[in-house]
Amino acid sequence: MSDVLRNIRIVLCEPSHPGNIGAAARAMKTMGLAALHLVRPQRFPDPEARWRASRAVDVLERALVHDCLDDALRGTGWSLACSARPRDIAVAEFPAREAARLAVERARAQPVAVVFGNEASGLTSEDVNRCRARAFIPADPDYSSLNLAGAVQVLSYELRTAAVGEGGPALARELATHEELESFYAHLEQVMAATGFFDPDHPRKLMPRLRRLFARAELAREEINILRGILKALARR
Amino acid sequence: MSDVLRNIRIVLCEPSHPGNIGAAARAMKTMGLAALHLVRPQRFPDPEARWRASRAVDVLERALVHDCLDDALRGTGWSLACSARPRDIAVAEFPAREAARLAVERARAQPVAVVFGNEASGLTSEDVNRCRARAFIPADPDYSSLNLAGAVQVLSYELRTAAVGEGGPALARELATHEELESFYAHLEQVMAATGFFDPDHPRKLMPRLRRLFARAELAREEINILRGILKALARR
Repeated sequence: MSDVLRNIRIVLCEPSHPGNIGAAARAMKTMGLAALHLVRPQRFPDPEARWRASRAVDVLERALVHDCLDDALRGTGWSLACSARPRDIAVAEFPAREAARLAVERARAQPVAVVFGNEASGLTSEDVNRCRARAFIPADPDYSSLNLAGAVQVLSYELRTAAVGEGGPALARELATHEELESFYAHLEQVMAATGFFDPDHPRKLMPRLRRLFARAELAREEINILRGILKALARR
Repeated sequence: MSDVLRNIRIVLCEPSHPGNIGAAARAMKTMGLAALHLVRPQRFPDPEARWRASRAVDVLERALVHDCLDDALRGTGWSLACSARPRDIAVAEFPAREAARLAVERARAQPVAVVFGNEASGLTSEDVNRCRARAFIPADPDYSSLNLAGAVQVLSYELRTAAVGEGGPALARELATHEELESFYAHLEQVMAATGFFDPDHPRKLMPRLRRLFARAELAREEINILRGILKALARR
């Protein structure tokens, strides 16, 4: 399942700040990505990169450093340039989610690269055009400048989600059975009638309202037991 | 459309590092979120927060500081605790994408809070239980520790995506018409036959292969014009 993620490399082109390299490594590793390629990093290796990587220093230690983007793309069957700026480029453009789906699909067969540019200047048009497609993160048009590690985090998250699914809900709880629930309602009605709060001859809409409340709450058996315990204790007073 | 995002506040509980507060503000702003609430920040305001916020300092300047989580949640109709650790908690749990959909749905009616814990220790069970539901980012089980700003970036991205959609493909290109494409194939076949590369009496599968290639390429009219220009130039030699 996450084997396909092993076939996806993250390429950072000319990153200026070693802290961002470390933060990108951490972002990758949280999503099961391990292959980091650096094109002409300004400072690498560097203690700040290690510090920001936290427990992802293994990703930094295995990172490969290249002189040019072509070297970092060697062997890939598909590559995705992440770039916020719309520009006159040759390749197809996809929002991050769709781009990640395509990348994962292609990574099942061949290595795929996801390429990010420099913090300040992004990728050049030339770099984008050396890739097979452009990905963009749909951001607020008034301020669309994610920091580098943030962009790597979003893409890595979308790649993982495309590979392994969006994460099901937590384990389904075992709900009370129909008859447990009906016994509870009968008990509740009886206690309310005994206190005089509920008048069976003028029921208004009290029971339907309470049924609606407890239906939404999706009671488990042990919760019904707690509620009936409270009712019993109250009735004894 | 993004009005609903104005109804969602991000709450950071006891953040240790001002840099993370700044990076979180930037992550929020890129996704159209503006309301930042801080519960007992260790250092705030702080120049490092401003530096990491980049052009999102306005979010920092309008941030509200509180003494306790309850104050930060005042007025909200729903709240989401972001916490990676499964624990014995009272509230429902959802993966980030589903949690963001629910948050946006509820934010159409009432203010909603999305709550993050301290960098090292996360949210306490008590804090999680003061919220209405828990969100988790589906990460690699072997290393699920996103940094604070990375987690804020992913949730903010999912909130924006839930509010405004996942971002359509870029503007559809205008493709060549059927007859332009057929004229091109006829031209191509004629030039190939004239050079002897294509033998109409022994066509093998050449034209179907070329048709498949060009169908995938989804040619635009101007691209057909370029290709026919090349064919003409070659035929003249």
